[in-house]
Amino acid sequence: MTREQREEIRRLRQKSPLDLGGDVALQRPLFEELLSAHPVPPDIVVDELDLDRVPALSVTVADTPCEGTTLYFHGGAFTFGSARSSLGIVADLARRSRTRVVTVDYRLAPEHPAPAAVDDARHAYETLLTTGQDRGKIVVAGESAGGGVALGLLASLPATSTPAAGVLLSPWVDLTLSGGSMTTRAADDYIVSREALARRVRDYVGDPAAAHRHSPLFERLDGLPPMLIQVGTHEVLLDDATRLAMRLADADVSVILDLTAEVTHVFQAFAPILDEAAAAMNRAAAFIRTAVSPGQT
Amino acid sequence: MTREQREEIRRLRQKSPLDLGGDVALQRPLFEELLSAHPVPPDIVVDELDLDRVPALSVTVADTPCEGTTLYFHGGAFTFGSARSSLGIVADLARRSRTRVVTVDYRLAPEHPAPAAVDDARHAYETLLTTGQDRGKIVVAGESAGGGVALGLLASLPATSTPAAGVLLSPWVDLTLSGGSMTTRAADDYIVSREALARRVRDYVGDPAAAHRHSPLFERLDGLPPMLIQVGTHEVLLDDATRLAMRLADADVSVILDLTAEVTHVFQAFAPILDEAAAAMNRAAAFIRTAVSPGQT
Repeated sequence: MTREQREEIRRLRQKSPLDLGGDVALQRPLFEELLSAHPVPPDIVVDELDLDRVPALSVTVADTPCEGTTLYFHGGAFTFGSARSSLGIVADLARRSRTRVVTVDYRLAPEHPAPAAVDDARHAYETLLTTGQDRGKIVVAGESAGGGVALGLLASLPATSTPAAGVLLSPWVDLTLSGGSMTTRAADDYIVSREALARRVRDYVGDPAAAHRHSPLFERLDGLPPMLIQVGTHEVLLDDATRLAMRLADADVSVILDLTAEVTHVFQAFAPILDEAAAAMNRAAAFIRTAVSPGQT
Repeated sequence: MTREQREEIRRLRQKSPLDLGGDVALQRPLFEELLSAHPVPPDIVVDELDLDRVPALSVTVADTPCEGTTLYFHGGAFTFGSARSSLGIVADLARRSRTRVVTVDYRLAPEHPAPAAVDDARHAYETLLTTGQDRGKIVVAGESAGGGVALGLLASLPATSTPAAGVLLSPWVDLTLSGGSMTTRAADDYIVSREALARRVRDYVGDPAAAHRHSPLFERLDGLPPMLIQVGTHEVLLDDATRLAMRLADADVSVILDLTAEVTHVFQAFAPILDEAAAAMNRAAAFIRTAVSPGQT
């Protein structure tokens, strides 16, 4: 239905010099530039937060009531990205979900290898709780590597402090890169490749033998709150999402695996120009609203 | 969160003398009685339809505007049930989705073995089209065996006549009964068992060697419209749903696999007394509304 829109996005992405598998110092500014290409709408209010030494940005829509908090972890293969680079998708999510979105500047590899990112995520979450935020009004969310950080956080929490729900967009949760889609979807995925991810795994966990231990896919997942996982079928990370959904089902966790055909990594970022992306963001927003306000829809 | 509600439903179901694997003549009236225990609300309007010799009931809510049609196939293991027995869940779906729901009296086994049910489904769908219903305003839906009928219908359609979407509740799509959950979830599922299904397979396909050929799970699935599949984790049919979702993903079909923890077969029928069921019905209704009215949510 939206072949032209998808082709336009392919052109946009392919003309970027960003190389996810490239040198960190060279690629970080390109990543920031790519994700910051569109200005944040003028009615979006961004405030700097200090979650007990973990920096974050609080994002709301001016003059619009909101309920609850979405705690968001940006993507960037554990080595790139920032709270600021996530503002495009985060502002869109704040508007649609009618929650405050707090996007976290967790520490990046290789300067800060695993488990620094998940440690920061947990510290940020626990600080939200100690400042009086009701855990039943918090949804933990993340995209790509940030989806892995979000899942790592959720898996580390005791049942007495889980949030209302989790939302993962194209999550990267298997650092051993063992999903079949790493090869079966390689030709379809023009954004992420196994080779690029393998380089970032070395940055994040050092010895590849440690990759399994730092993969939230393989952690105990029982006791997690209801989860929404969105992914495109044109992703090498497709099987990270499908295997995670199957493991959650095995653990008797309520999970919605929401697959959109023929779109690629974190396609939701293109909601302003891609119909399927806007539809997926609306579903994610409805899921978040229902989680923090169960009486409403 | 709703352990008491789930236990109440278990007591209700377990005190019914219905035996899905029992004698057809004895069980049919029990099935009708169980599903018709609650009166249809007084504002529900039920009209008899003749879809060119396939009987059906058209279900709307009095004095309430609706858009589009949900074509619904009831459950009952291909041998039990009727359009009338489905009125409880169908009326609820009509109200929440704001569509007209047409629930079809397809022919039952053993009097009418496979593929009579799918033939009737296709005939009903094509008759809707010839009477002027826009296929972009039709969602094909079904529960349990009716989910298999709905999928069989969808898989039989050329790309030029697919409806807007498909919705399957606890679908039974593998008549070879090869899902791992047939055993791993047997202790959790107090409604459906492999043994009961095996007896109904003999009614529906005769020689068990024909079961594979009549299983929509194993048909070609590319070209299907966006699909929503809902299932409980306490179902022997869990893996029918999960494997179908994986096959749809492989075929580049957009699919939402919506798993609710610790509930059993067609739990949505208990929406009036089970919170998770009402939430699942709301998600199904939102999916249907978006499919027939893409501009709205």
